[in-house]
Amino acid sequence: MMFHGVIPPVCTPMTPDGEVAVDDLRRLVAFLLDEGVHGLFLLGSTSETVGLTDAQQETVLTTAIAAAGGRVPVIAGCIDFTTRRVIDRALRAKAHGVDGIVSCAPFYLKPDQAEIVRHYTMLQEAVDLPILAYDIPGAVQTKIERPTLATLAASGVLSGLKDSSGQEANFRGVLLDTAQYPEFSVFTGSELMADVALWLGAAGIVPGMGNVDPGGYVRLYDAAVAGDWGTAKAEQERLYRLFRIISVGQAPGIGFSAAAWGSFKVALKLRGVISSATPTAPMSSLSPGAEAKIEALLKEASLEQVAVTT
Amino acid sequence: MMFHGVIPPVCTPMTPDGEVAVDDLRRLVAFLLDEGVHGLFLLGSTSETVGLTDAQQETVLTTAIAAAGGRVPVIAGCIDFTTRRVIDRALRAKAHGVDGIVSCAPFYLKPDQAEIVRHYTMLQEAVDLPILAYDIPGAVQTKIERPTLATLAASGVLSGLKDSSGQEANFRGVLLDTAQYPEFSVFTGSELMADVALWLGAAGIVPGMGNVDPGGYVRLYDAAVAGDWGTAKAEQERLYRLFRIISVGQAPGIGFSAAAWGSFKVALKLRGVISSATPTAPMSSLSPGAEAKIEALLKEASLEQVAVTT
Amino acid sequence: MMFHGVIPPVCTPMTPDGEVAVDDLRRLVAFLLDEGVHGLFLLGSTSETVGLTDAQQETVLTTAIAAAGGRVPVIAGCIDFTTRRVIDRALRAKAHGVDGIVSCAPFYLKPDQAEIVRHYTMLQEAVDLPILAYDIPGAVQTKIERPTLATLAASGVLSGLKDSSGQEANFRGVLLDTAQYPEFSVFTGSELMADVALWLGAAGIVPGMGNVDPGGYVRLYDAAVAGDWGTAKAEQERLYRLFRIISVGQAPGIGFSAAAWGSFKVALKLRGVISSATPTAPMSSLSPGAEAKIEALLKEASLEQVAVTT
Amino acid sequence: MMFHGVIPPVCTPMTPDGEVAVDDLRRLVAFLLDEGVHGLFLLGSTSETVGLTDAQQETVLTTAIAAAGGRVPVIAGCIDFTTRRVIDRALRAKAHGVDGIVSCAPFYLKPDQAEIVRHYTMLQEAVDLPILAYDIPGAVQTKIERPTLATLAASGVLSGLKDSSGQEANFRGVLLDTAQYPEFSVFTGSELMADVALWLGAAGIVPGMGNVDPGGYVRLYDAAVAGDWGTAKAEQERLYRLFRIISVGQAPGIGFSAAAWGSFKVALKLRGVISSATPTAPMSSLSPGAEAKIEALLKEASLEQVAVTT
Repeated sequence: MMFHGVIPPVCTPMTPDGEVAVDDLRRLVAFLLDEGVHGLFLLGSTSETVGLTDAQQETVLTTAIAAAGGRVPVIAGCIDFTTRRVIDRALRAKAHGVDGIVSCAPFYLKPDQAEIVRHYTMLQEAVDLPILAYDIPGAVQTKIERPTLATLAASGVLSGLKDSSGQEANFRGVLLDTAQYPEFSVFTGSELMADVALWLGAAGIVPGMGNVDPGGYVRLYDAAVAGDWGTAKAEQERLYRLFRIISVGQAPGIGFSAAAWGSFKVALKLRGVISSATPTAPMSSLSPGAEAKIEALLKEASLEQVAVTT
Repeated sequence: MMFHGVIPPVCTPMTPDGEVAVDDLRRLVAFLLDEGVHGLFLLGSTSETVGLTDAQQETVLTTAIAAAGGRVPVIAGCIDFTTRRVIDRALRAKAHGVDGIVSCAPFYLKPDQAEIVRHYTMLQEAVDLPILAYDIPGAVQTKIERPTLATLAASGVLSGLKDSSGQEANFRGVLLDTAQYPEFSVFTGSELMADVALWLGAAGIVPGMGNVDPGGYVRLYDAAVAGDWGTAKAEQERLYRLFRIISVGQAPGIGFSAAAWGSFKVALKLRGVISSATPTAPMSSLSPGAEAKIEALLKEASLEQVAVTT
Repeated sequence: MMFHGVIPPVCTPMTPDGEVAVDDLRRLVAFLLDEGVHGLFLLGSTSETVGLTDAQQETVLTTAIAAAGGRVPVIAGCIDFTTRRVIDRALRAKAHGVDGIVSCAPFYLKPDQAEIVRHYTMLQEAVDLPILAYDIPGAVQTKIERPTLATLAASGVLSGLKDSSGQEANFRGVLLDTAQYPEFSVFTGSELMADVALWLGAAGIVPGMGNVDPGGYVRLYDAAVAGDWGTAKAEQERLYRLFRIISVGQAPGIGFSAAAWGSFKVALKLRGVISSATPTAPMSSLSPGAEAKIEALLKEASLEQVAVTT
Repeated sequence: MMFHGVIPPVCTPMTPDGEVAVDDLRRLVAFLLDEGVHGLFLLGSTSETVGLTDAQQETVLTTAIAAAGGRVPVIAGCIDFTTRRVIDRALRAKAHGVDGIVSCAPFYLKPDQAEIVRHYTMLQEAVDLPILAYDIPGAVQTKIERPTLATLAASGVLSGLKDSSGQEANFRGVLLDTAQYPEFSVFTGSELMADVALWLGAAGIVPGMGNVDPGGYVRLYDAAVAGDWGTAKAEQERLYRLFRIISVGQAPGIGFSAAAWGSFKVALKLRGVISSATPTAPMSSLSPGAEAKIEALLKEASLEQVAVTT
C-alpha cells in the first residue's frame, strides 16, 4: 500500500493582501509533521485550490514540498475540468516532485461513467505517477460509480480513492469491491466517520479538520491500527463535536465553503500556527463573533496554543 | 445597448490529434459572419472551453478575433472557479482585444449571493471591459438570483446577462427587474425559446445550435425586431425540431455533453464548414449511426452544404 | 376541446377550528363564476387537498359542485400515491358528478415512464371520465416525459395535461408533440407565463393566483383569444408583479407552501370573499406583517374589495 | 427503551388479482417470528403501503396483528401527507391494537422544520401511542434535521426515529444528540450498515431485506449485543452482497421501487414463504430472468427453502 494513515488536505494560508503566506504555510507543514501525520495532500478542496491562481499553486507546491523535506509522502490535487487540463497540472506537480496526484471526475460538462474511465486512463498514460480518484459529487455533480472504480482498480490505472461523497454505504461497497487489490488504497474524506471507515478497511483518512487537530486524527488512527476501537470511537466523538466549527461562521455574505474552510484557518490562527485567517476571493473573513464561537469549541475539545518550530 | 442580436457561442473545431483546428475555426467564423450573426461568443460552454488547455484557449482567441476582423463585437468566456482566476483570464482576453467578457458565478466552492456580488464587483474593478454574468446553474450549481442581478445592474457592475438556466419565468422577472437600465442587455441561451425571449424583451440570443443554423436564428431575430412574431415563431418551431440532434448521439461512452456539443460539430462537418468533428478529451466522437440521424434531421430542417470562403 | 380557458384550482377555505368553511367556499365559487372563469379545478395542490381528510374532501366536492350549478365544467384532483388509490378517489369524484379528473404520476415510490403509462391506462379503464395528467415534479419528484404524454395522447387515454413543472421549453415540446390530437387539451399551471403558454398553443390556464384575481386572468385569456397579445402581456406583467404575494409570508414556521397557499387565502379575505384565512395543519397562519404586505400588493395591482352574492 | 432489535417492515403479499394475500401474510409473519425478529413494522414503505387501498391497509393490520398474537411489539406506518390525515390513520391503527406508530415529515407540500415539530406535536396530542419519526427524504423530499429531532426527543413527543436517509454521519449526530434521552430509540433503515449503526449506539434495525433473511439480521444483532463485532461484520458483509437482489430486476417498465420491493417478494416466494410475488399497481412483476438472478444470489448467501407452520 503506497499511502496510508492521516493525510490532511493542507490549508493554504493567505496574506491579508491575497498572496500565499509562505511562512505560515511552512509553519503549518511543520505543525502537521510534528503531530505525526502520515502524508500531506496539497491543493485539495480545503486548500482553497480553486481560489488560487496558477502561480500561487506553484508557490504552494514549492513551499510545502520543501518544508516537508521528504519526511512523508506528498500528493497533489490536480483539480481541473477535463483530461488535457488535468494532465498539464499533473506534469507540473510531477516536476515539483510529488509522490502522487489526485483527480476528480471531469466536470462542468456532464460525463458518463465510460468517459470517467477514459479520463483516468489517459491521465495515467500521460503521467507516470500514482493516481487517486477524488469522488466529490457535491462539488463536481457526477458520482464515480462502484463499477467504474472496480474497473480502474483492476486495471491498475488507479492507485486509490479519496471518497468525499458522504455516502458511507456505497463507500463500504467500494472497499468490498477492491479488497482483492491490495495496492489500491481507499481513503475517506469524512471528518466524522473516520473510525468507521478504518473499521471497514480503509487505508486512511483525509480530513480537512486534520489541519486543526492532526494529533487527534493520528491518535484515532493509531488506536484503530492497534484494534482499540473504543479509543478510536471516543476520539472520533470528540472530533465530531469539534466539527461544529464549520458552520458557526455562516451568515449573510459567508457561504457554506467560506464558513467551513474559514473555520479551519481561524482555528489555526487561534492555536498559534498561522498569523492570518484570510480566505481567497470572493470569500470574506469570518466575523469576530464566529471567531469567538470557534475559540470556545477549541477549548471544549481541549485544543490549546502550540509552539511550532520551522 | 452594447450587444444585441444573435451571438453564437462559437464551437472550437479540433484536429484528430487533439489540437485546435485553426483553419476550421477560421472557416466557422467566416460562415457565421456570412450568415449575418451580430457578434461572436468565444470560449463559452458549447466551445468546449473546459476541454481546452490554456494555450489552446489563447489560440482560439487569436484565430477567431483575426478572422472576425472587427466586423462584429467579440466577447470571451472566462470560465473559471473564482475571482482571482477569472481576473487572470479576463486580462488575457482583454490583451487579445475582446469587446466584453462573460463570467459564471463562482463554483466548485458553494458561494452565497453576496459572494457573487463581490465576485463581479472585484472583476469589474480589475478589468475595464463590459461584463456579462453567465447564469448556468446546471453547470455551476448556484443560481444567480434576481435580486443579485438587479443590484449589479443598478450599480453598473454588470452590462448584461447570458441566461442558460432554462428557467423562463425567472428570466422574465429579470427582464422586468432590469428594464429600467437600458444599458443592461439580457440574452437567452435557449435554443428553443428564442422567440419568446425576444417577445419578453431580451436583447438577443446566444444559441449553441446557432453554429449549425446561424441563418435561421438571424431570420428569427430579424422577424422579431420587425414585429413579425408569426414568422419568428415558425422559424423557432423549425429550429425546435432540429434541436433533436443534441440527443441522438447519446450512448454508452457518450454522455450528455458529448452528444450535445458533438452534434453541433457533426452538423458543421456535414454542412461542409469544418473538416473534423473531433471533440476534446475525455469525450469521444459520435457514432456513424448518430451522424446519419443528424444528417436526416439537417435535411428535414432544409439545411444543406454551404460554400465558405475565408 | 373538452376544457379550455381559465380554470383556477379552487382554494379550500377553512374555519378557525379546522373544518371546511362551507359558506366561504360557496362565496368563493360564486366570486370565480362572477369573474368569468371557464371551469373549476377542485382538490388541486393549491386547494390544500393534501391537508384535507377524506371526509373534508367529500364536503368540498358536494359544496362546490352545488355552488357551480352546472354553469361551468368542474374537474377534480385525485391526488394519491398509486393506481388503485387514485381509482378509488376518481370513482368517488365521479359519483359527485365531476366532468373530469386530474391525476399526478405515481409517487412516494419511484416509477419509470412505462409504469406511468400503465397507471393512466388502468385509471382510464376503471373510470369513464376524461383524465388530465398533472405534471408536477416539484411535488412528486418524477417528470412525465414528452414521449409518455405523446403515447397517452395518441391512444386517447389522456384528454389533456396540466403542466406545473415550470419547464417552459419542454412544455412547448408537448404542445408540438400533441398538436395533431385536437381533443388533447394542454394547460399551464404557471401564474407567470400564461400569455406565453397561450401564444404557444395552450388551451388554457390553471393559475393558483386565479383565486385572487380571476378577472385578470380572464381578461388575459380573452385578449389572447382575440389575438391582442399586447393586452395579454400587459395583464400578465401586472399579475407577475402581484405574484410577489406568495413569498412575503415566508418566515420561521411558515414554509414555502404555507406562504404561497396562505397568501391566496389572505388576499381572498382582504378582498372580502372569505371570512378566514386559516390553513390546514401543520401549516400556520401568516403574520399580520405579511398580511399588510399582501394588502399593499393588492392595492398596487388595483384589486379591491368585492361584493359577492351567493 | 420501548422498541429494540430487528423490526422488519413486513412485505404485503398480494394475490394475482390484486388483493391482500391473507394466507401468505400469515405465513410471512410466522416465518419472521420463527426466525427471531424482535418486532414487526406493518405498512412501511417496503410494505407497498402506498399501493394499498385504505381497505387493504385495514386487512393488513387485522391479519398481521392476529398472526403475531402479541409475541412481539407491532408498530404501524401512518404514511400520509399531513397532520389531520395522519391522525385519522393513527387512530385506526390504534383501534387495531398497535404498540406504536411511524410518521414521515409532512409531504407533497414543502414544510419547514417548525412545521415538522408542529406536525408531531399535534399527532402526539391526538393519539396516545409512542410515535417514531420516519426520516426518508428520498421519498418525501424534506429532511428531518438534527435540531428538530433533538427538540422532539427532549419534549417526549417522539419515542424514536427510523432513519432511512442513508446519511450515516448525520445519523451518528442524532445518536449523540439524543443519547441523554434513554427512552428515545434510534433505528436505522439501512440494510447495509446495520453493524455500524449498532456500534454507534442504535437501538435496532428496520431492514426491508429482513423479510428475506430475518435470521441473518437477528444473528447480526445478537452478535452486536454480545460485543462480537467481528461476527456482526461478517454477517453484514454477507447481507451486503445479498442486497444486490434489489437492482437485478431493473428493466424498461420496472422502476427502482418495483425492482427493490419486488425482489423481496420474489425471494420470499423462492424460499417457500409466500405463494405469489405480485406487486401493487402500477408496478409489474419481475421477469423470469430477474427471478433466476435472485435465486442465484440467495444460493450464494446460503438461503434455502424453509418450512413455515402457521
